[in-house]
Amino acid sequence: MDGNGRDEDKVEHGFHHEEEDVNKYNKGEMSVEQIFERRQVPPWRKQLTMRALGVSLVLSILFSFIVMKLNLTTGIIPSLNVSAGLLGFFFVKTWTKLLQKSGLLRQPFTRQENTVIQTCVVASSGIAFSGGFGSYLFGMSERIAKQSGDNGGFKNPSLGWIIGFLFVVSFLGLFSVVPLRKIMIIDFKLTYPSGTATAHLINSFHTPQGAKLAKKQVKTLGKFFSFSFLWGFFQWFFTAGEDCGFASFPTFGLKAYEYKFFFDFSTTYVGVGMICPYIINISVLLGGIISWGLMWPLIEKRKGDWYAVGLSSSNMHGLQGYKVFIAIAMILGDGLYNFIKVLTRTLTGLFYQLRGRQALPIADQHSPDTSEKLSYDDQRRTQLFLKDRIPTWFSIAGYLTIASISTIALPHIFHELKWYYVLVIYIFAPALAFCNAYGAGLTDWSLASTYGKLAIFIIGAWAGQNGGVLAGLIACGVMMNIVSTASDLMQDFKTGYLTLASPRSMFVSQVIGTAMGCIVSPCVFWLFYKAFHNLGLPESQYPAPFATVYRNMSVLGVQGFSALPKDCLLLCYVFFGAAILINLAKDMLGNKWGSYVPLPMAMAIPFYLGPFFAIDMCVGSLILFVWQKLSKEKADAFAAAVASGLICGDGIWTLPSSILALVGVQPPICMKFLSRAANARVDKFLNPQS
Amino acid sequence: MDGNGRDEDKVEHGFHHEEEDVNKYNKGEMSVEQIFERRQVPPWRKQLTMRALGVSLVLSILFSFIVMKLNLTTGIIPSLNVSAGLLGFFFVKTWTKLLQKSGLLRQPFTRQENTVIQTCVVASSGIAFSGGFGSYLFGMSERIAKQSGDNGGFKNPSLGWIIGFLFVVSFLGLFSVVPLRKIMIIDFKLTYPSGTATAHLINSFHTPQGAKLAKKQVKTLGKFFSFSFLWGFFQWFFTAGEDCGFASFPTFGLKAYEYKFFFDFSTTYVGVGMICPYIINISVLLGGIISWGLMWPLIEKRKGDWYAVGLSSSNMHGLQGYKVFIAIAMILGDGLYNFIKVLTRTLTGLFYQLRGRQALPIADQHSPDTSEKLSYDDQRRTQLFLKDRIPTWFSIAGYLTIASISTIALPHIFHELKWYYVLVIYIFAPALAFCNAYGAGLTDWSLASTYGKLAIFIIGAWAGQNGGVLAGLIACGVMMNIVSTASDLMQDFKTGYLTLASPRSMFVSQVIGTAMGCIVSPCVFWLFYKAFHNLGLPESQYPAPFATVYRNMSVLGVQGFSALPKDCLLLCYVFFGAAILINLAKDMLGNKWGSYVPLPMAMAIPFYLGPFFAIDMCVGSLILFVWQKLSKEKADAFAAAVASGLICGDGIWTLPSSILALVGVQPPICMKFLSRAANARVDKFLNPQS
Repeated sequence: MDGNGRDEDKVEHGFHHEEEDVNKYNKGEMSVEQIFERRQVPPWRKQLTMRALGVSLVLSILFSFIVMKLNLTTGIIPSLNVSAGLLGFFFVKTWTKLLQKSGLLRQPFTRQENTVIQTCVVASSGIAFSGGFGSYLFGMSERIAKQSGDNGGFKNPSLGWIIGFLFVVSFLGLFSVVPLRKIMIIDFKLTYPSGTATAHLINSFHTPQGAKLAKKQVKTLGKFFSFSFLWGFFQWFFTAGEDCGFASFPTFGLKAYEYKFFFDFSTTYVGVGMICPYIINISVLLGGIISWGLMWPLIEKRKGDWYAVGLSSSNMHGLQGYKVFIAIAMILGDGLYNFIKVLTRTLTGLFYQLRGRQALPIADQHSPDTSEKLSYDDQRRTQLFLKDRIPTWFSIAGYLTIASISTIALPHIFHELKWYYVLVIYIFAPALAFCNAYGAGLTDWSLASTYGKLAIFIIGAWAGQNGGVLAGLIACGVMMNIVSTASDLMQDFKTGYLTLASPRSMFVSQVIGTAMGCIVSPCVFWLFYKAFHNLGLPESQYPAPFATVYRNMSVLGVQGFSALPKDCLLLCYVFFGAAILINLAKDMLGNKWGSYVPLPMAMAIPFYLGPFFAIDMCVGSLILFVWQKLSKEKADAFAAAVASGLICGDGIWTLPSSILALVGVQPPICMKFLSRAANARVDKFLNPQS
Repeated sequence: MDGNGRDEDKVEHGFHHEEEDVNKYNKGEMSVEQIFERRQVPPWRKQLTMRALGVSLVLSILFSFIVMKLNLTTGIIPSLNVSAGLLGFFFVKTWTKLLQKSGLLRQPFTRQENTVIQTCVVASSGIAFSGGFGSYLFGMSERIAKQSGDNGGFKNPSLGWIIGFLFVVSFLGLFSVVPLRKIMIIDFKLTYPSGTATAHLINSFHTPQGAKLAKKQVKTLGKFFSFSFLWGFFQWFFTAGEDCGFASFPTFGLKAYEYKFFFDFSTTYVGVGMICPYIINISVLLGGIISWGLMWPLIEKRKGDWYAVGLSSSNMHGLQGYKVFIAIAMILGDGLYNFIKVLTRTLTGLFYQLRGRQALPIADQHSPDTSEKLSYDDQRRTQLFLKDRIPTWFSIAGYLTIASISTIALPHIFHELKWYYVLVIYIFAPALAFCNAYGAGLTDWSLASTYGKLAIFIIGAWAGQNGGVLAGLIACGVMMNIVSTASDLMQDFKTGYLTLASPRSMFVSQVIGTAMGCIVSPCVFWLFYKAFHNLGLPESQYPAPFATVYRNMSVLGVQGFSALPKDCLLLCYVFFGAAILINLAKDMLGNKWGSYVPLPMAMAIPFYLGPFFAIDMCVGSLILFVWQKLSKEKADAFAAAVASGLICGDGIWTLPSSILALVGVQPPICMKFLSRAANARVDKFLNPQS
């Protein structure tokens, strides 16, 4: 069981006994980890191979291009974990197969190595998003400042300071997240749908050949992967222009679509819904109904009273303000409650442990009877996950060191950012990183940009007219980097947990990946910036919409909370309190009834984004529910494979679709949805003679 | 087995033994007719009950409203057989259940009675279509003549002459089709997809309870029925306006859509494709590729050379001329070949029979070994279908009598129509009725309006400037009534064959239904005509588009064939010859290779309509093919049920959709498909400020 200290020959040894295992597996006697039992887990240093890092670099560059492109066009970035896992496998597998044929293969390709590649790529390409090239960082440029029309100053992008800035802020998230990994993965048993799907994918690729059920699962995964991929491909053809295609399908009518109630045919979120527990999907839908079904339409009726008429839909002085701030309030309420709860329990546990007693189980309602009912898989995974420890003092020391360097260095790069702003951010950041990683574990949504917006407003308001606009934007960047890394890397830890990769090799891989990203991403951005001279202009191919939005938020932030629409702050207090009360009720009611209480964190997400993805997820839930009713056995065996296939296929499609966009191939058709009246007008406009 | 002369008590008797049968059936030992074996087939007079005729009248009025509405809005009328069968069942079943509870039920509800209702309703509502209220008949009115701008005269609709006209022409189709029924149903074993689906539906409703497989089939049918119905319902929401909704989905791109290559998401035709033999679906697709994939694009390149530039797409002087006339040429070639072949064989058979020898098998390539391999179901069905004979002399005498009356009467109603025009039509009509019934049997498409157009051109050209426009339109009416009735009623005979309904009761039901239709349809039209004063005007709610089209065709017809576009007549000759040669080759090659030769009749249909429905049908074929590969047993047991469910669900949806339209509820959304460039223009038009 202990993979440490064994040499490579022994790693290969296990293969001979696998045929027996396969028979047992087919009889339903073996679980995933039992099949893999005879495959030695290589020691953590051996998981970090040169070829893995080489492939990671190639994929990093590829994904940085994709993410950058998405940043600069729509600003919506899907999770690329699965694509990274899949492509990593194909690259190394092809490589090892070639080597094997030539007899030069010294070390077989293991799933741990595959996870290392995936982690490295995610860490690296994550920087392309959290670096803010399409949002806060580019929002500081002169070009965007001119469009905004404010006099908050500017700082044009330049390769030098961007790389410096990223190196100074990007590693903090890494250190802040490492001590949390046991709580999130082992104690809370959070889902991390993307991470789970990736792990499933990696496991199925490396399953010893001959295991029939596994083969069937791989086949199922492949089928749904192909379907999802082809469906994405088919959808693409109909997306010429805004509000075109299946992603804008007003399934429940145009009025419902206006309030974002529609099924957007995204196989990704149907798959996510199949992986997430029912209560999460229901919470998300409930949140959507409360916000977009009730509150926003009601608040909209107060237009002219509560807020001014004629504001654009993205104006923070209008309805958008309620959406963003109430969502933030709920997320903060839930996050704070859980943070305090875990902290209390941890401290209590520590206290008892120091006295020699057994620690109380942490967050018992999440994993009611951890010690008793642990399956073989869970036991083995937990054992390996906890084996290669990363000492807490190491991560705390790392965090403090980098935070100090950063606090000193940042005000030298950005004169508007005072050192005490940075210090305040670094004091609160770990708590927010915890909130985000926790939320992503529940729902797969990373709310990094929401936390970033919070920083914009607080620091912007604090700095005021004294360079507040730029200070807010940089604060946003600092915050986003920490919070985004926290959720991304926790997804990876979940993948590592499920594939028996060592947390140490994961950590090193993340450090290397982050370093790669700090260099690759600015270079890719620089290429775009130099290649497209109209980058950031509204009518251009790369309008970078969020750059303007972020800058405008910062401009608003300088005016402080008092500029918020009427009663918004009051509503924020109410929902902040409600989130804490719901959590309290959940804990009070105990396991039986508490499990029916919705989760405020999950409820908050559609407040800002709209309930469309909640509908996708509930469709996934419904499919799983009906399937389980029809055939519990089959559903339990194949649901994860189906869900992973759906998520991966759609995820991988983003790669060719981005490449198509990059080479200038645009979709030919727009599938448009018009009301009867608008359609009559359009018909007349297109055929004036008839 | 002989149901004749038994009383009602005995009819009910069979139920006691059914439980034993069910067990056998479940073991796969029993076929459909074996389950029904102990249920007596009532004598033909008992199949025609008063309650059946009462329900038929109610449904006739309902369907006449639907068809009339469709006539006057788009002119596209789907097959209503299945709806009639289903609604007939529900009406009488409810009625008999009520009576049974009150102890007053004297005669149980049989599937034969159900078929009689369905036949009567189809015969009656068929008149609403073939009466030409949206096409030739209304095309004669002053209102349409004014729009057309010709001086060909007019005859305004009036309740009196319309009813007279319909009574004089509508029964001819009935008599012309009766002698053909054995050839079509027993010898050729034609599919008649709608008729087969209806029969399947009726059979499954009346299956003795407890038969597990039948129950499963009914469940499958019900599931796909619901799906198809709900899908139709869902589609409806997105069809505000022309070229909107799933039926205009450019699945293969806008260029392919322009040439009608697209999947229109019609569950009806997917179901039809599952019922039709593979070779038919392939023939239809091949025809579509030859015509819309090759010929029309090539001819279009000769625009300005072969025909004038700037003609509207429906102008017979342009491309539309090639489409209509080449299709007609192929249909005529195929029809003529088969007609002559059957006639020869029939005459030879008669000759040998008179000499006391056995008749040669008719059309042996369609049913290679009729006598040997006949299943129990086929034996029993054939036996009952042939039992209650309708003597051929009776139908010939009936045809001649009515034709004589009609030849004398029609010129008195329409002075432009000379008696010898009518005579000529009546000489050729039976051959064309055969062609149409044959084609509908293969593909479910009735081409009545195509034959009507032929009559317009021939009689119009013949009459010339001497009232040719009106003469052509009336000739169209005479022809359409015969040809349309032929295919509709042959569908019903197929249903009757599969439900063991007596041909005699069917015939009487058809006569009664036709008589109903001759009174109900004109009254319904009169209501529309009086209620909507702008009926027939282009901008109105009821534009009756085909009325103008038909009149314009007639105006063109007066100028004779010489007015056809260049080389059109030559191409017609070529395709007429090709159709005959292909048939000849099919017969020469024998059973093995001949079955791979496509059918010209099936190929001709997409020439005019476009290949979109061929794609639907091939999708159906593909589903069946894959299903048979995966599980031959299941596919054989359930494919017909699935197909029937798909056809019926979509068919029944036309009822609520028509009612919605009738009460003025219009679909709220248009799902529009625009090219990238058009979309950009539309976006600018809709949001001029942005």
